[in-house]
Amino acid sequence: MQYNRLNTPALIIDEKIFKANMEAMEKCLEGSSLRLRPHYKSHKCAAIAKMQIEGGAVGMTCAKMSELEDLVDAGVEDILLANQVADKRKIARLAQLALDSHITVLVDSEENIRDLSEAAAFAGSVIHCLVEYDIGMERCGVVSNEEVLRLAKCIIDSPSLTFDGLQAYAGHISHMVDKDERLSKTKANYEKLKELIEYLNQNGVEVKTVSGGSTGTAEIKAVEGLYTELQAGSYLFMDNTYRDLELPFKNSMFIVSTVVSVRDGLAVIDAGVKTCGVDQGMPRVVGCDVKEIVASEEHFQLHEPSVQLNVGDTVLLVPGHCCSTVNLHDKLYMVRDGKVVDRLMITARGCGK
Amino acid sequence: MQYNRLNTPALIIDEKIFKANMEAMEKCLEGSSLRLRPHYKSHKCAAIAKMQIEGGAVGMTCAKMSELEDLVDAGVEDILLANQVADKRKIARLAQLALDSHITVLVDSEENIRDLSEAAAFAGSVIHCLVEYDIGMERCGVVSNEEVLRLAKCIIDSPSLTFDGLQAYAGHISHMVDKDERLSKTKANYEKLKELIEYLNQNGVEVKTVSGGSTGTAEIKAVEGLYTELQAGSYLFMDNTYRDLELPFKNSMFIVSTVVSVRDGLAVIDAGVKTCGVDQGMPRVVGCDVKEIVASEEHFQLHEPSVQLNVGDTVLLVPGHCCSTVNLHDKLYMVRDGKVVDRLMITARGCGK
Repeated sequence: MQYNRLNTPALIIDEKIFKANMEAMEKCLEGSSLRLRPHYKSHKCAAIAKMQIEGGAVGMTCAKMSELEDLVDAGVEDILLANQVADKRKIARLAQLALDSHITVLVDSEENIRDLSEAAAFAGSVIHCLVEYDIGMERCGVVSNEEVLRLAKCIIDSPSLTFDGLQAYAGHISHMVDKDERLSKTKANYEKLKELIEYLNQNGVEVKTVSGGSTGTAEIKAVEGLYTELQAGSYLFMDNTYRDLELPFKNSMFIVSTVVSVRDGLAVIDAGVKTCGVDQGMPRVVGCDVKEIVASEEHFQLHEPSVQLNVGDTVLLVPGHCCSTVNLHDKLYMVRDGKVVDRLMITARGCGK
Repeated sequence: MQYNRLNTPALIIDEKIFKANMEAMEKCLEGSSLRLRPHYKSHKCAAIAKMQIEGGAVGMTCAKMSELEDLVDAGVEDILLANQVADKRKIARLAQLALDSHITVLVDSEENIRDLSEAAAFAGSVIHCLVEYDIGMERCGVVSNEEVLRLAKCIIDSPSLTFDGLQAYAGHISHMVDKDERLSKTKANYEKLKELIEYLNQNGVEVKTVSGGSTGTAEIKAVEGLYTELQAGSYLFMDNTYRDLELPFKNSMFIVSTVVSVRDGLAVIDAGVKTCGVDQGMPRVVGCDVKEIVASEEHFQLHEPSVQLNVGDTVLLVPGHCCSTVNLHDKLYMVRDGKVVDRLMITARGCGK
């Protein structure tokens, strides 16, 4: 079947570009001690996680307990849950899953460390912990060297937990268009991080793992050598948002959408906010300049399209944000030379708990 | 189970407010000839559709073929698909479903009318058609009286189709905060619509049905008497967006979310863009003023919350947009006096095709 015969809106992957992105990431990390631990949130597809691990990824990163459960269920053996797990029932489940896979979780409070320790002791498992260091994103994590040391020592002293190191994720830098600014901000962060690690070492705490980074900072991290793990996710599909960053990855994910109504200077298509994530901006229409895109739930209105569009035509969209778009679909269609060659289930679609 | 013991983020409905909203809508329409045909897109839950029909709704409105299929499958017998169906395979399915339920669809082109007619003839069914008149929203539909007449005659002349009337949906007016402006714009639209209907009558075309309206214009429509059907959807749950409109409906839908990280002047919760639609703005935190909310995929950062929040606490959010939020969840929990009393499946969640 040709891709434009799919029931629309449909999410497709250009296999050739997808594979080239995988190879470009390998190249990025070549000669560096940085290991890839790709983020599950970007594709939520167990089959793709398996491809990434076969391709050399050290394991997976995920954002939610329900994503973690999906990955363990799919037989993934090394998973970082890059988040704080505050709810005791979730902690109890996490501790049980740690019997089946090597599981690492972030912490930023002593009480949370105590809960994790007790749950792991009950399960008879070991939970690996990274202290989250807030390197400027102002989300979770602690901000001072002293707090990091205090939590690290608390983990070291806790039965059934191991202190592996740090997460320092600078998500706020990821999308900076100016490469020099991205580089200089990243370097400033590294200085802070380096100082922190030295401080911890001086106080007898060994830092084995430093996890962080994203698609936007992959190149920079690869040459830097301070981080041990890169959590990039979007590099496989790419967002329209990353368009101006001159990264070595290309858009491989598209939405196939059908034109449903046309008049002078306006074409309306059957994709909208409920099938294409707009939290990081509007999609781009492939091969067609558009003066303005207006979004509603089930429509994008394409104002003044540069190409003549007729009712029933299909168009390809590059979503503004691949991660939020994947979460709106059940299936990804793999396309080779214009033909659908495989269908992958988005097994963690909607796993937001 | 108390609602704050749910696995978070969880979508809950306050049953009392939900029922009061249903009654408020009945009151709105009392004494008017306007019939309620509520929009499925706002809850996507077959069980709630059944409640609405039992409560006097004439049938349902929906946005997508896959929503239509879900409603037919659930035994709903009168459905308006308030959209153009351009794809021939979808048209073929629609024509088959029209054997099982009374189905009405929008049209705005002659070619589309021909396709619908042929498919219905093959199926041995009858498809009811409304011509979509664009009353100012600049989305689908035709804009001149002459075009409406041409399409109406084309439908009347087509085997296996019936011309029932018009859809004129003024979605762009729905959220106007100034009630006088909302009223005057609505009245101006009515004048246009009245003129159109008179023109059609003069040309021998009878208009049985005029469908349109929304939660924001329900009160106005109810006193106006030109529309025959109201497509309101959000009135059951309400959005934070509708907050300033002084409507007779209250927020009945909330997201229960857990605080996962806290520091001075900042609390981070486990709901974000992947569990709460932000396409019409940020959520509101119940009982807590917040200086700024920063959104990411799985977090909202609550800056300077007016209430002391601790890790593990639950908070209630009023989503900015109920329709896009429902599409991110599988289940709705019905809560009475703080207790979960029922769980409703969101049967059309993700039905975007």
